[in-house]
Amino acid sequence: MIEYRNLRVALLGAGSVGAQVVALLQKHGDELAQRAGAGLELVGVAVRDVDAPRTADIPRELLTTDAEALIVGADVVIELIGGIEPARTYILQALNSGADVVTANKALIATHGPELFAAAEQVGAQLFYEAAVAGAIPIIRPLRDSLAGDQVTRIMGIVNGTTNFILDRMDTDGEGLETALATATELGYAEADPTGDIEGFDAAQKAAILASLAFHTTVPIDSVHREGITSVTAEQVASARAAGFVIKLLAICERLTDASGTEGVSARVYPALVPRTHPLAAVRGAKNAVFVEAEAAGDLMFYGAGAGGIETASAVLGDLVSAARRHVIGGPGIAESNHADLPVLPISSVTTRYQISLLVGDRPGVLATIAAVFAEHGVSVETVSQSVSSVGADGGPATATLVIGTHEASEADLAATVAALGGNDVVRSVTSVLRVEGSD
Amino acid sequence: MIEYRNLRVALLGAGSVGAQVVALLQKHGDELAQRAGAGLELVGVAVRDVDAPRTADIPRELLTTDAEALIVGADVVIELIGGIEPARTYILQALNSGADVVTANKALIATHGPELFAAAEQVGAQLFYEAAVAGAIPIIRPLRDSLAGDQVTRIMGIVNGTTNFILDRMDTDGEGLETALATATELGYAEADPTGDIEGFDAAQKAAILASLAFHTTVPIDSVHREGITSVTAEQVASARAAGFVIKLLAICERLTDASGTEGVSARVYPALVPRTHPLAAVRGAKNAVFVEAEAAGDLMFYGAGAGGIETASAVLGDLVSAARRHVIGGPGIAESNHADLPVLPISSVTTRYQISLLVGDRPGVLATIAAVFAEHGVSVETVSQSVSSVGADGGPATATLVIGTHEASEADLAATVAALGGNDVVRSVTSVLRVEGSD
Repeated sequence: MIEYRNLRVALLGAGSVGAQVVALLQKHGDELAQRAGAGLELVGVAVRDVDAPRTADIPRELLTTDAEALIVGADVVIELIGGIEPARTYILQALNSGADVVTANKALIATHGPELFAAAEQVGAQLFYEAAVAGAIPIIRPLRDSLAGDQVTRIMGIVNGTTNFILDRMDTDGEGLETALATATELGYAEADPTGDIEGFDAAQKAAILASLAFHTTVPIDSVHREGITSVTAEQVASARAAGFVIKLLAICERLTDASGTEGVSARVYPALVPRTHPLAAVRGAKNAVFVEAEAAGDLMFYGAGAGGIETASAVLGDLVSAARRHVIGGPGIAESNHADLPVLPISSVTTRYQISLLVGDRPGVLATIAAVFAEHGVSVETVSQSVSSVGADGGPATATLVIGTHEASEADLAATVAALGGNDVVRSVTSVLRVEGSD
Repeated sequence: MIEYRNLRVALLGAGSVGAQVVALLQKHGDELAQRAGAGLELVGVAVRDVDAPRTADIPRELLTTDAEALIVGADVVIELIGGIEPARTYILQALNSGADVVTANKALIATHGPELFAAAEQVGAQLFYEAAVAGAIPIIRPLRDSLAGDQVTRIMGIVNGTTNFILDRMDTDGEGLETALATATELGYAEADPTGDIEGFDAAQKAAILASLAFHTTVPIDSVHREGITSVTAEQVASARAAGFVIKLLAICERLTDASGTEGVSARVYPALVPRTHPLAAVRGAKNAVFVEAEAAGDLMFYGAGAGGIETASAVLGDLVSAARRHVIGGPGIAESNHADLPVLPISSVTTRYQISLLVGDRPGVLATIAAVFAEHGVSVETVSQSVSSVGADGGPATATLVIGTHEASEADLAATVAALGGNDVVRSVTSVLRVEGSD
């Protein structure tokens, strides 16, 4: 019989993740103790209301409304309250008392990460946050530890399950955005107010966290360029499909050198065309995946459930075991290091490929005119395809749809090109502008 | 200017991985020191012949033929010699002197893992082996740390790039095994003697390592059931494709309860039919992927390059940084724990789905006869499809091909069924028996 040191674990919050953490700790406590090398004693669960329905399966004697008292004397504090306050205050209190903290709070890490990491480092504690990005998918440890000997050059993540579900419905069933969103809401994949998901706020927080970690640089949430999926149309999805692409909302973190030779990082979120042959194109439904390009390791992908109570609880408990092992071993935690401190470059510094759809008058010389506009602005055309032309509905001149794929071009040059196209009299309208990400 | 403690790093072996480790350490040494919190001083590279061509890019003064002298006084020893001896002796020497060891040696971990882990635990050192399984893909840390709070139920891995390349060529280009193997050899994906790959020995070693780690149980290499790809025919691949499957060589590690109620683990390697909709089906060319099913986390997949000098060097350097951080923090390493110590069950305990192809005489009552054979042996039929019948080449009776998919059945029951089918006079021949793994 091995005698273990017992570690005192305090849980703040008993929502869908917290309830699963309690259940799994009760079910597998002995097994986890053997893996951790220490007993894991749940000393209390702080909730706002001990009589709330979701606390029904938690032993009554563990429940308390006094989070601050619970934190005192805990070895590990698990924060699953979410949001900024009071989560931030509780985490700082826990770290300052020398406890390790495990959190799934992406909003807090994305906005107050540096403050929290500094507090942890000062006392030699550690802040674990695997559950904050991509739910159950191990991505924080691979980036921090497995790739610690490598140089990450680029990350492309499908990190929001709601929008991936919606875009997948649009792609698979030909649904419009409204219908697909309604389905997502009905099936519980979207919240009553879906703004945080469909406008890309959630993905932007994860992009900030991933970029900070991968590039050892503080990437503030405000510096993440963000476009949601609300402007994606059924027509865009259908024509992407016809051209061998699928539209995905991507969180992109990239190390790049801008036109002036400045080396920096970019973090951005937008819907993009991904070739169907790319591994990210096969990520269906509400699944998440993070595609990592590294100098030596090459292309890696991490795939799985990005949300869900029990799935996220898996990541929380993995962090709890790591925290416990650390307590058993002793010594300070691994500090989050922002030593590289690269500048965060604006979206205008980014170069990427584009696909632009235009409605044009179908007459001789149109293509030459359009090609000249691209050339004038230094944007190199890679592919042109023209749909079957049709007579105008008003019996007027025939129109055609031109789909133009570009080589890599800067956001600035592309924006100038699109503006010039809009003002050119052979162009009826610019119907779609999408970036293309990921090679075949 | 931060002053770092300098750690002494000894490298044993300078093959394709070792040369890349030296190059990357020289290129990114300062950056790695910041991440590790310690300088990483390469104190020497032990080789058999200091004048061998592949050592040309390594500074002459680092080269030595005296590995044992190099190990003395090293903080971290990187073993990239491969094979059992002298690698085993050197690793034991290093661990016994208190050095951490980083290795990419799958054969050694699969056969002598328990001895090496015990030696490490005795002195509080740690043995790192991320590079031993699936090259650059982070899989050891996710299983040991990220999923430490979860219960892994099943792993299905494409862990051998050579065989995946061959099977992918057969699937994509319709090549036979011989032709695809010749292409693999020509392109450098297969060695001059491909036995270790195509007979499944390499995959079996990785299965033993993954099963031991995932189930906290010693899984000896001899207990891994192994079938290679040499019996896979172009016809099997084509008919799999027609039925919506792709044939992949899988390393399967499973927690299961056998017919007698004994809970245990199974580790096995064989070619299997995988539904095209399964994420593993999209793993093309020489890429590797490990699909993990866990109780709480659900389905996860880890994808990337499974081999290659620089890719494997990435994993080695990640382990080196972890070893260095551990030295800076102090305290004992994380011991590999086989506390669960589950019995390793034989292949006869395994149940899976099967697809059996039969050449039968095309006459009334054949299907009823065949169905009765399955029923007699307790194997439940899920699907039957019959190809267009044809007149025998000798002008004899027409024959038909029956493809029968079963529900889950035990290996023992299935073997008895196949034997009975072979002896039944309506069956001309049993042309293919393949297991089906992974759900749609």
